[in-house]
Amino acid sequence: MNYINSGPKKAAITGLGAYVPKHRLTNADLEKMVDTNDEWIFARTGIKERRILKGQHKPTSFMAIKAAKKLLRKKNIAPRRIDMVIVATITPDMNVAATAAQVATEIGAVNAFAYDIQAACSGFLYGMSTASSMISSGRYKKVLLIGADKMSSIVDYDDRATCIIFGDGAGAALFEASDSDYGWEDEYFRSNGSGRKYLNIKAGGSLLPASEVTVENKMHFLYQDGKTVFKSAVSEMCNAAEKIIKRNKIDTNKIAYLVPHQANKRIIDAVAKRINLPSQKVMNNIEKYGNTTAATLPLLLNDYEKKLSPGDKLIFAAFGGGFTWGAAYLTWSY
Amino acid sequence: MNYINSGPKKAAITGLGAYVPKHRLTNADLEKMVDTNDEWIFARTGIKERRILKGQHKPTSFMAIKAAKKLLRKKNIAPRRIDMVIVATITPDMNVAATAAQVATEIGAVNAFAYDIQAACSGFLYGMSTASSMISSGRYKKVLLIGADKMSSIVDYDDRATCIIFGDGAGAALFEASDSDYGWEDEYFRSNGSGRKYLNIKAGGSLLPASEVTVENKMHFLYQDGKTVFKSAVSEMCNAAEKIIKRNKIDTNKIAYLVPHQANKRIIDAVAKRINLPSQKVMNNIEKYGNTTAATLPLLLNDYEKKLSPGDKLIFAAFGGGFTWGAAYLTWSY
Repeated sequence: MNYINSGPKKAAITGLGAYVPKHRLTNADLEKMVDTNDEWIFARTGIKERRILKGQHKPTSFMAIKAAKKLLRKKNIAPRRIDMVIVATITPDMNVAATAAQVATEIGAVNAFAYDIQAACSGFLYGMSTASSMISSGRYKKVLLIGADKMSSIVDYDDRATCIIFGDGAGAALFEASDSDYGWEDEYFRSNGSGRKYLNIKAGGSLLPASEVTVENKMHFLYQDGKTVFKSAVSEMCNAAEKIIKRNKIDTNKIAYLVPHQANKRIIDAVAKRINLPSQKVMNNIEKYGNTTAATLPLLLNDYEKKLSPGDKLIFAAFGGGFTWGAAYLTWSY
Repeated sequence: MNYINSGPKKAAITGLGAYVPKHRLTNADLEKMVDTNDEWIFARTGIKERRILKGQHKPTSFMAIKAAKKLLRKKNIAPRRIDMVIVATITPDMNVAATAAQVATEIGAVNAFAYDIQAACSGFLYGMSTASSMISSGRYKKVLLIGADKMSSIVDYDDRATCIIFGDGAGAALFEASDSDYGWEDEYFRSNGSGRKYLNIKAGGSLLPASEVTVENKMHFLYQDGKTVFKSAVSEMCNAAEKIIKRNKIDTNKIAYLVPHQANKRIIDAVAKRINLPSQKVMNNIEKYGNTTAATLPLLLNDYEKKLSPGDKLIFAAFGGGFTWGAAYLTWSY
């Protein structure tokens, strides 16, 4: 590792892979499960259906492995050349043993080290910064970042406030040193721990370990105070995106796409409006996947991959549990 | 962020802070709880007592905040100058909301972003690499890394194989660009997901969500196949440490200290023997704290801080759940 003697390198995303389970949970299905309806769900969230990972003993890594393998195949990269595997997730397979270690081994990345990042819906955004810095510092050549969540493992399908929103999925991005001038440009990230009372899982951590009482009281499911999270998300995603655009002197007309975390179509619209972007410049696939937490950003990039060209200016924005949030600026490299 | 135009910087640890709870769980106490005795525990593990965080509603962040505040006071740094807070832990306060976000807010780090890293006993080691790369890439100036675990929240005090080993604690380290030639020099990290069957918590993740059955069957407690973990830890920590020493051409006589994860005194002794280090050059405090998982390395550095001088060559080595492991080389900066 001679990073002291080599110049700092800009990191770029050089490949993508994604996986969503086959099973579709539609609004019509949800109508039969809780007191809700398609019109209400779509008007409030923009969601038509979500993918659900069915079958016992299929944890988050099941999807992360598939997404990573697709990327390696597409790029024709031998897994032993991967230096590091990061999995951003709030639904790790198990506690203690990092999901990333399982993924690295299952894809054959025998020379990689691996860890999980936990920052909820900002996990992939923060992971992009981390992967980029590992490349920019000159320390590693190929960093595989995966955002993956099996939200169906923490969603209470009797709670109509959350069960209509979340879905399962995984997306992977490869980070390498850029051989052009394009890549990771800037980031503005913040957190506020006082937001954790509005978005959390009450039990199962060191604050309230699992017990008969916590299971009985359904305290291992995701809780969200939707109104507060909605308001905070709009405000902070807008502020962060504006900050990034302003300090990098980006002409809004020159932005190729806003890449917003897919929590709610109305949040996405509010952010786009605030930075004056027409809807065709806003990546959007919430209709078919819902909120897949750490997987939303790579699932978007994967869906729009063929529309992207070298030099395209992308503005990322995310907000999630913690609270954690931020925006970033990346120029597309391929 | 002008990291493209600035040279890469070596990152250094520039400050430390630590916290352990007051309550001591001694071998004599454990004799009354499970079928064991002081002589057996000490001979097998080198542990005399552990610290336990007593009191309801005191999660891991309680200790992490105290460790971070001590560091800020010692260094006389305004918390608003911290750019990033990383918490390495396997016992987060809650799921979804990162413990690091809570810590950042509670210490007043209003300009920081925050996330958790999960790599079990290698969490702090991997966090050091991450914090260093965030500094080396030129992206941030002050990164606060905290290793903290409330192991008593996941230990079954009826299981004599694990309850004698683990303790609670937290340690914090500040990373800044080095103003000397000293700092983070090299790292060799690896992972192997097939090790997760030997060291894990079976339930509470996406593989096996919490239920009446998982609570009844005590599946939310730490499980360890001690023999397999012991053998793998000795072998991999030795290999990684040797690799680092060899490729950096370090004369063993010039090593100031080995800084080994404190899982078991016999593992530590085996690693020291393999790289030919006398015991006075091996940092060791397992006798008083046991295995505090992500907190062992910063607790060691904090205990030995006054003995360290600029330029001291330190070799870190760790092994833990995942499996994850590695070694690193750092020259002390103050």
